[in-house]
Amino acid sequence: MEPLEELETRLREIVDLRSAAAVLEWDQNTYMPPEGAAARGRQIATLQRLAHEKLSDARVGRLLETLEPWARERADDDPGACLVRMTRLDFDRATRVPPAFTARFADHVARTWNVWTKARPADDFAMVRPLLERTLEMSRELAGFFPGATHVADPLIDQMDPGMTAASVRALFSALRAELVPLARDILSQPAADDACLKQAFPEEAQLAFGGEIIRAIGYDFSRGRQDKTHHPFMTRFSWGDVRITTRVKERDLGEALFSTVHEAGHALYELGTARELDGLPIGEGASAGIHESQSRLWENVVGRSRPFWHHFFPKLQAAFPSQLSGISETTFYRAINKVARSLIRTDADEVTYNLHVMIRFDLELEMLEGKLAVRDLPEAWRARYQSDLGVSSPTDRDGCLQDVHWFGGQIGGVFQGYTIGNVLAAQLWEAALDQHPDLPEEHARGEFGTLRAFLVERLHRHGRKHLAPAIIEQATGHPLTIEPYLGYLKGKYGELYGL
Amino acid sequence: MEPLEELETRLREIVDLRSAAAVLEWDQNTYMPPEGAAARGRQIATLQRLAHEKLSDARVGRLLETLEPWARERADDDPGACLVRMTRLDFDRATRVPPAFTARFADHVARTWNVWTKARPADDFAMVRPLLERTLEMSRELAGFFPGATHVADPLIDQMDPGMTAASVRALFSALRAELVPLARDILSQPAADDACLKQAFPEEAQLAFGGEIIRAIGYDFSRGRQDKTHHPFMTRFSWGDVRITTRVKERDLGEALFSTVHEAGHALYELGTARELDGLPIGEGASAGIHESQSRLWENVVGRSRPFWHHFFPKLQAAFPSQLSGISETTFYRAINKVARSLIRTDADEVTYNLHVMIRFDLELEMLEGKLAVRDLPEAWRARYQSDLGVSSPTDRDGCLQDVHWFGGQIGGVFQGYTIGNVLAAQLWEAALDQHPDLPEEHARGEFGTLRAFLVERLHRHGRKHLAPAIIEQATGHPLTIEPYLGYLKGKYGELYGL
Repeated sequence: MEPLEELETRLREIVDLRSAAAVLEWDQNTYMPPEGAAARGRQIATLQRLAHEKLSDARVGRLLETLEPWARERADDDPGACLVRMTRLDFDRATRVPPAFTARFADHVARTWNVWTKARPADDFAMVRPLLERTLEMSRELAGFFPGATHVADPLIDQMDPGMTAASVRALFSALRAELVPLARDILSQPAADDACLKQAFPEEAQLAFGGEIIRAIGYDFSRGRQDKTHHPFMTRFSWGDVRITTRVKERDLGEALFSTVHEAGHALYELGTARELDGLPIGEGASAGIHESQSRLWENVVGRSRPFWHHFFPKLQAAFPSQLSGISETTFYRAINKVARSLIRTDADEVTYNLHVMIRFDLELEMLEGKLAVRDLPEAWRARYQSDLGVSSPTDRDGCLQDVHWFGGQIGGVFQGYTIGNVLAAQLWEAALDQHPDLPEEHARGEFGTLRAFLVERLHRHGRKHLAPAIIEQATGHPLTIEPYLGYLKGKYGELYGL
Repeated sequence: MEPLEELETRLREIVDLRSAAAVLEWDQNTYMPPEGAAARGRQIATLQRLAHEKLSDARVGRLLETLEPWARERADDDPGACLVRMTRLDFDRATRVPPAFTARFADHVARTWNVWTKARPADDFAMVRPLLERTLEMSRELAGFFPGATHVADPLIDQMDPGMTAASVRALFSALRAELVPLARDILSQPAADDACLKQAFPEEAQLAFGGEIIRAIGYDFSRGRQDKTHHPFMTRFSWGDVRITTRVKERDLGEALFSTVHEAGHALYELGTARELDGLPIGEGASAGIHESQSRLWENVVGRSRPFWHHFFPKLQAAFPSQLSGISETTFYRAINKVARSLIRTDADEVTYNLHVMIRFDLELEMLEGKLAVRDLPEAWRARYQSDLGVSSPTDRDGCLQDVHWFGGQIGGVFQGYTIGNVLAAQLWEAALDQHPDLPEEHARGEFGTLRAFLVERLHRHGRKHLAPAIIEQATGHPLTIEPYLGYLKGKYGELYGL
């Protein structure tokens, strides 16, 4: 076998194992009976361990050494050369972390997650505190396997958002914060929008049907995916032809299922838009956490909470829920779905305050990793930051530092920044799309989304993970990541909404 | 690591891979979107190939050699010793078949199955004929990897029903046939039972709910399983805590979902009854195709089509479908669900004629393997045997030799005999259970099934695959496989029904 062919064969096997693990996880979250849990955890761990073993096989290293001189001679965008370059990064990362550490960490995380599922409803931070302390130690140990890093969080951030560092995220967040805090203050000094129209009783089946209609309209292809209900919504890719989403429905909150459905469909459109010929290879998937989030937020917020979008869909929504919405105007509805409010829960936050929630977490996790903040002081530090940044603070830890799964699922440092990068990049992509297609808002008002989708496929989706995130972003928008379009978007939209 | 511990660790990994493949297959049959098919086939093949590679690893052979002297000193029923003995058989089988052959065969079978799915509705045997010829050649090649066999089908039969051979199955079938043909003739000379009561419109959801109620009553535990709809019903085990069944519903045939549900639940009760401490090991599963089928047929037919069973459930069925069944007597219903008729389709056949369908297939596949019957002559040979054995013959091949998936799914020789062994063994187990618990019919008439279930768990289920099928059968019933209880059961039940 030729070296490139052998490398591809080995990588396809790894992707098959990971895709199989993804199917098992999807089933675990959708249809698995309760008593299936114990064996399922073991089965998923086996698949992931085998995938890791196969990626860190010395033979992969030798194939890379053979192929790298060849790859350097190829065009920058040559799929084979891209595969060699990206596999080098994956291989180095996989071989730097000893399998024994990975197994220990996985065990610890499983135990921690399990305790967190009890500690959160019990509002008992002390229960999970020693475990979180251990997670921090192990996260530092993990970072230590990448000795060149400037900051302890850099290897963790780089894994999720390649090309970003603690320093570059801090710079981005600092610039953003300087504008967002006064913007939020100005908005919050106004009377709050009335969102009572969303808080009526909306039958579950009708909500699901309407969500399905919307995502079909924006291009989600049900012959290549499906939607099921889960406790927490997510998107998962099994192959180019099978990219699924899940949602949850709250009978008395129309926004919950609706926007989580559009959000997850945005993630799915990215995976569905990757080039078919890359399917089954590790370069055939989304490129980074931040870029992925840009796709979900673009469709959920920039498009899905826009006036033109609801100019088209609101009459249909009224027809689906006549008794609840026939007396509601399009503008009232538009204001309701864009209500800005001080809140305790990140996932419920509006576009303007959402990033402040993210920054609190990012700053606190970096302080903990640096050893400047002790885990025992986290609950108070959390409350203090919420009070200063958002003007609210939770009396409980349940709605405070216990609210997100991430830290208790083993991700401290490296995960939250992706949410804000996604928001920023969504606006940057939208600006690039508008620049090329100024009629997009009019098209959306007619329920036509093909132009935007084609733009995203051409500029972003089809390239998968052939390059690192910074190159992908520059290729898609013509610029490095920048906050200007996002600030312009927020100020324009909310300035108009709140007469600023 | 101690040798036994290392062997167990390796075997658990293999079972995890196979269980993962089973989840992917379940999903393929239940919820997978259409475009997911191509990658899914590849993913399943990867998992199965890896499981095969790991089983045939030379290290497994060395561990077995180390452990076999130890195992010989242990008690016959010692789990470790059983594991060593059964793994020796599995290892020898796995290492005898070259991986290249397995891959070629899998490819060929996938292509053949695909063509069959088109050939059957098109009633076009010629379309699939050359592929079936190739399957026969490859089946002979496969058998050739087991050179000690007396008959070419022996290694194929032994894989599904260990301990059986072409000669022993022929002897069993010949003795059975001598009694079944005149019994069927006597019954079919009587006026046919009236089953019109089953052929009304029964809403799908209510059928599913009633089936669920029945299998819950016989002991299927929904916290350790679930039921979904598929084109063809099946049972699948992912672990001791997750054993699922599927069913299909025909609105105008009450018997379809009802008895397929009880059938698959019978398979599931077997897997659910295996010892929990064997879970994840290859000896923690059902022991053979025939024994498995005995559990499905025992619950479907011996119990599920009995008078006492319906004495309990018929009033509930009437309550569930009052407009359809309120005017129907228990006896009319009992006769309807036990109607004996000449039929073309095996899966629709009644208890008396079912085995004649099986024997036709078994005889024809052996003739083909022996080279005595050419594939091009199969359609006519099929028609001739149906005419002589059952007095009917299909003008089409769709309802003739194209009807079953098995041959076109790569299984020629080795699969059909299990269905009849299952029927025979179901009666043998029932006799053994009645011998110990003569009140079983009265208990069933009260809707109590715990005694029978406990008997089956104790005598059969909990032992899993610790021994070969013949030893398991003898342990469960006190006798080797024998047709006398089955003939007695059929003659008793149908003699009473038809006044013979």
